[in-house]
Amino acid sequence: MNNVETVKDTLTTYAKMVEKALEEYLPSESCLQQSVITAMKYSMSSGGKRLRPALTLEFARLCGAKPETVMPLACAVEMVHCYSLIHDDLPCMDDDDMRRGKPACHIAFDEATALLAGDALLTQAFETIAFKCDPQQIPLENILRCIKVLSRAAGTQGMVGGQTLDIGLRDKSVSAGMLDTMYSMKTGALITASVKLGCIGAGADNEKVEAANKYAKKIGLAFQIVDDILDVTGDAKTLGKPTGSDKENNHQTYVDIYGLDKSRSIVKKLTNEAKAALSCFEESAFLCDLADYLAEREH
Amino acid sequence: MNNVETVKDTLTTYAKMVEKALEEYLPSESCLQQSVITAMKYSMSSGGKRLRPALTLEFARLCGAKPETVMPLACAVEMVHCYSLIHDDLPCMDDDDMRRGKPACHIAFDEATALLAGDALLTQAFETIAFKCDPQQIPLENILRCIKVLSRAAGTQGMVGGQTLDIGLRDKSVSAGMLDTMYSMKTGALITASVKLGCIGAGADNEKVEAANKYAKKIGLAFQIVDDILDVTGDAKTLGKPTGSDKENNHQTYVDIYGLDKSRSIVKKLTNEAKAALSCFEESAFLCDLADYLAEREH
Repeated sequence: MNNVETVKDTLTTYAKMVEKALEEYLPSESCLQQSVITAMKYSMSSGGKRLRPALTLEFARLCGAKPETVMPLACAVEMVHCYSLIHDDLPCMDDDDMRRGKPACHIAFDEATALLAGDALLTQAFETIAFKCDPQQIPLENILRCIKVLSRAAGTQGMVGGQTLDIGLRDKSVSAGMLDTMYSMKTGALITASVKLGCIGAGADNEKVEAANKYAKKIGLAFQIVDDILDVTGDAKTLGKPTGSDKENNHQTYVDIYGLDKSRSIVKKLTNEAKAALSCFEESAFLCDLADYLAEREH
Repeated sequence: MNNVETVKDTLTTYAKMVEKALEEYLPSESCLQQSVITAMKYSMSSGGKRLRPALTLEFARLCGAKPETVMPLACAVEMVHCYSLIHDDLPCMDDDDMRRGKPACHIAFDEATALLAGDALLTQAFETIAFKCDPQQIPLENILRCIKVLSRAAGTQGMVGGQTLDIGLRDKSVSAGMLDTMYSMKTGALITASVKLGCIGAGADNEKVEAANKYAKKIGLAFQIVDDILDVTGDAKTLGKPTGSDKENNHQTYVDIYGLDKSRSIVKKLTNEAKAALSCFEESAFLCDLADYLAEREH
């Protein structure tokens, strides 16, 4: 792929916009309950690709909306993502001390503060959509539809359900179909919500929402399979987290079921299908390059 | 007070209505991610007075709405309350093994499931409002306003903020003003949201919303002071939880600051002020009796 630098540049541009908006949307620390807000901001500012809000902003752009119109939606998705990472890292879940090369929230602070910071970010996501979306730009009906999409993606039919399945399937032999279901809930649901929110926030028609949904499902699954591959082949330093954690936690992965080569070819196929789904969008170059970039990433 | 039985009967009637609606709003267990849903339902069905949804339903009634119109709002408030109890009981928070005379969620299941069940209930609250409120009955603008009120009451400026303050103030000498602030955020915010949601869902004017708000603030603080009193004077069996836990957890309480007698007289004063706030409502008998009942309760 030739466009790695272009993709990285665009992601960085989006990330800067998102980080600026988050400063406005996250509560001020100059108050009594400072510690939980400091912890929220610590985890929200610990980098990452800001993939989800970038998807929201890019699909909104393709559907004719300005970034500021959908920025509350983009930030809400990132808040939900960040809350899930904080809670996933807790000792009673994956018990990970490191996240993106920095101490996890419950290590940098303490477990109680991390638990509350996650709770607060999930709440803040809905608060941000409700208070910060401008009904002059996004009709009330669509604001409410975004809350429907995000809450469903985050709850028992989405992320929390996927996490539950993940825990339930540890130490068990898992079929490929079951693994797909688990991944589509655990990671796919929020990536899918990110693109839908971009489209809905921009007032796109259902054809576009559906096309975006298909793209997101494909890259979401590919993303998770690449994670499985990197957990075996990756370098802990590049990844910012220890490798081999799937084996250690008795997670079955795509690599266990299909082996490395077949897993890589599934990623390639999904990436091509994702790109093909974009035909109804005129300017899909960045999203195509992004799909390639995610498939070939090393962290 | 002569009306204890009437209050109890009305609360029971409301509780039955709420419990029936919850069956519809909570996800079905016949799915792969069953364990988290079983845990959600376990905690949602472990009784309690259903005070918050009763307040939503009663204020809606006084403002002219049918119970079914505001039922999604009433249930959403109860879900947020229940999520907060599940997370508060976790080992990294209050580490309480018992809740309402039954094993706490993380004891009946495990910590990971309890964490996820709490996360799922918080999410489900917003999902329920967004999906189950009927825009034919509650205008979109008011549905969105309810999401604003609930998210703000649950987040860093409300419940989570209060919990953070609570943790930060342990082992410290606390002023009465600080304790009021902490209680108003930790317990008061959600009780206040409950009454506001009833009024807003019924399309009440701002005068009524404000009167309801004042009533809720007063009974919310009185409720918490009664908790402090019962933690010293109560009977573990009647309470369904151990007494003396404030001392054990180094919580300062109203009793520490004011002593028992003065605390009791503050409860009385707040209860009278709560009742006085109801003057703009025609039929406030139940709410007056409820204020008395909460002030004189033994569990």
